[in-house]
Amino acid sequence: MPQERVTVLGLGAMGGVLAGSLLDAGHAVTVWNRTARRAEPLVHRGASGAATVRDAVTASPVVVACLFDHASVHDTLEPVVDGLAGRTLINLTTTTPSEARELAGWAKRHGIDYLDGAIMATPPMIGAREASILYSGSRDVFDRNQPILDGWATSTYDGDDPGIASLYDLALLSGMYQMFTGFLHGAAMVRSAGVSSAEFARRATPFLGAMTAAFAAQAEVLDAGDYSDPPQSLTWTATALDTIARASRESGADPAPITVIRKLVTDQIEAGHGDEDLDRIFEGLRTG
Amino acid sequence: MPQERVTVLGLGAMGGVLAGSLLDAGHAVTVWNRTARRAEPLVHRGASGAATVRDAVTASPVVVACLFDHASVHDTLEPVVDGLAGRTLINLTTTTPSEARELAGWAKRHGIDYLDGAIMATPPMIGAREASILYSGSRDVFDRNQPILDGWATSTYDGDDPGIASLYDLALLSGMYQMFTGFLHGAAMVRSAGVSSAEFARRATPFLGAMTAAFAAQAEVLDAGDYSDPPQSLTWTATALDTIARASRESGADPAPITVIRKLVTDQIEAGHGDEDLDRIFEGLRTG
Ligand SMILES: NC(=O)c1ccc[n+]([C@@H]2O[C@H](COP(=O)([O-])OP(=O)(O)OC[C@H]3O[C@@H](n4cnc5c(N)ncnc54)[C@H](OP(=O)(O)O)[C@@H]3O)[C@@H](O)[C@H]2O)c1
Ligand SMILES: NC(=O)c1ccc[n+]([C@@H]2O[C@H](COP(=O)([O-])OP(=O)(O)OC[C@H]3O[C@@H](n4cnc5c(N)ncnc54)[C@H](OP(=O)(O)O)[C@@H]3O)[C@@H](O)[C@H]2O)c1
Repeated sequence: MPQERVTVLGLGAMGGVLAGSLLDAGHAVTVWNRTARRAEPLVHRGASGAATVRDAVTASPVVVACLFDHASVHDTLEPVVDGLAGRTLINLTTTTPSEARELAGWAKRHGIDYLDGAIMATPPMIGAREASILYSGSRDVFDRNQPILDGWATSTYDGDDPGIASLYDLALLSGMYQMFTGFLHGAAMVRSAGVSSAEFARRATPFLGAMTAAFAAQAEVLDAGDYSDPPQSLTWTATALDTIARASRESGADPAPITVIRKLVTDQIEAGHGDEDLDRIFEGLRTG
Repeated sequence: MPQERVTVLGLGAMGGVLAGSLLDAGHAVTVWNRTARRAEPLVHRGASGAATVRDAVTASPVVVACLFDHASVHDTLEPVVDGLAGRTLINLTTTTPSEARELAGWAKRHGIDYLDGAIMATPPMIGAREASILYSGSRDVFDRNQPILDGWATSTYDGDDPGIASLYDLALLSGMYQMFTGFLHGAAMVRSAGVSSAEFARRATPFLGAMTAAFAAQAEVLDAGDYSDPPQSLTWTATALDTIARASRESGADPAPITVIRKLVTDQIEAGHGDEDLDRIFEGLRTG
């Protein structure tokens, strides 16, 4: 694998692991962190510690940013934008799609090649095939930097809209947090009867895993926009949700996560769609 | 397979399929429905149509109820409770755990053997191995009636607390509805960039499927009640949820399902647990 020169800005939980992974792969790594002592373990492992952001960005043709948020990327890079011109910026800081688009526009105006990345992994997963990083923006930057990107995770290029990687990431994470909350809510319900969460997980893992197979059929309904032929109608679902909420209260568990879904269902029923499919709440969510 | 005499009360979408499946398996089936004409197709297929509930319950040693709700079971059976005495009642009507316990107590007082069932399937799934029906209450009724139960679905016996089958069912369905809403919410977000729901499903199915593997580790944390060693803290998660909510708003999608999770996180942070694990919202849900 060719040795690349690469700079990493931001050595927090994630940035530190990304930089360490590059060192392990034999790349020539320059590191910088706002709080300087966080760079020390990496310098000890062979990284060059840059005293200033300017030294850091001018040390390598490729600069990776893994900072806190959109504002911290601007705060860090604005003062050295002239030093970045003509170089490549791979921004792995979590941002919203419009923040990523704004950064891509800013980079373009200053002659910086920009690739946006969304990390779908925790720090310990970096370096494993199961870790996934989504990229969008410059296809050229993605192609040229495979030796860097592929050491971190399974990389996919999602298109030249710089916001699309972040959009996929946050949409999938939205699903994940809702699924996790669903698991925790169910675990809270059964705990009222003394059932351990381990026992509940033994059932929830295969059940919810199998239920993900339904997404494809739901997607067909959503893409067609035709909700008229439901296996179970919205009014049927309303009764089911009410029973779940009642059982939740009976078991001492907060029904709030179900109440919010019931509200989405109620809105569609009140709009005259009671005979249609549950998937119709997609329309309510989309125009919320 | 031995031919059993069995009565089915309630021939709606689900009850009709359950009765049809018994006929297909060669059992001697008596059927009754409040609105009599719904019995006709089954009588045509060989069922005996009972003119009254009393005729129905006295025709067979085993009576299956698949009615609308808890109240409709009482409405239907109270007037003929003397006819039911000494027989077996398998109640597949969806009820909350405490409603199931109430019905079991009522049955016991009247000399009726009671088994409660929770159907985890839609009507077209009945008869397939993937269909699952959970049972609790009388173990003896469960064991004696395997020839009936096993034709419908994969049957499991969950214990002598008559409410436990329903509790598992509703807890798992809570998880399912939250996961489905998560999928629909994510699909609404990416639709803003013109991404089809089919494309989103191609990513969400493996991603959320893989994430169900996390339940086992979450369960260990919940069962130990020790949230002090998180991979990602509640304050970290709060920022992630805020970014998702912001991206949701930017994409025109209602952030309500994320807002409710953020509230659960806020409550734990305000209670002083910001450095602890996301799974701590379980404690908030449990005492909601
Ligand atoms: N950790 C994960 O599991 C994970 C997963 C996916 C994506 N990400 C994303 O990766 C990024 C970094 O996350 P992390 O877990 O490494 O966070 P972290 O441990 O909190 O580190 C944050 C980093 O940002 C720096 N920073 C904060 N504000 C700054 C500013 N105004 N100017 C310059 N530097 C600033 C911090 O420097 P100091 O040391 O000086 O405070 C530190 O290096 C975030 O956008 C996060 O969403 C993380
Ligand atoms: N369908 C499913 O996918 C599914 C899945 C799991 C569990 N379940 C459960 O199975 C049960 C039946 O569901 P279903 O889908 O068959 O519902 P359905 O098609 O709406 O049928 C409801 C049945 O209940 C009867 N009924 C309603 N109120 C009554 C009353 N006061 N007295 C006597 N009979 C009454 C109806 O009789 P009429 O014909 O006279 O109205 C009909 O036979 C429900 O508890 C449901 O939650 C259904």
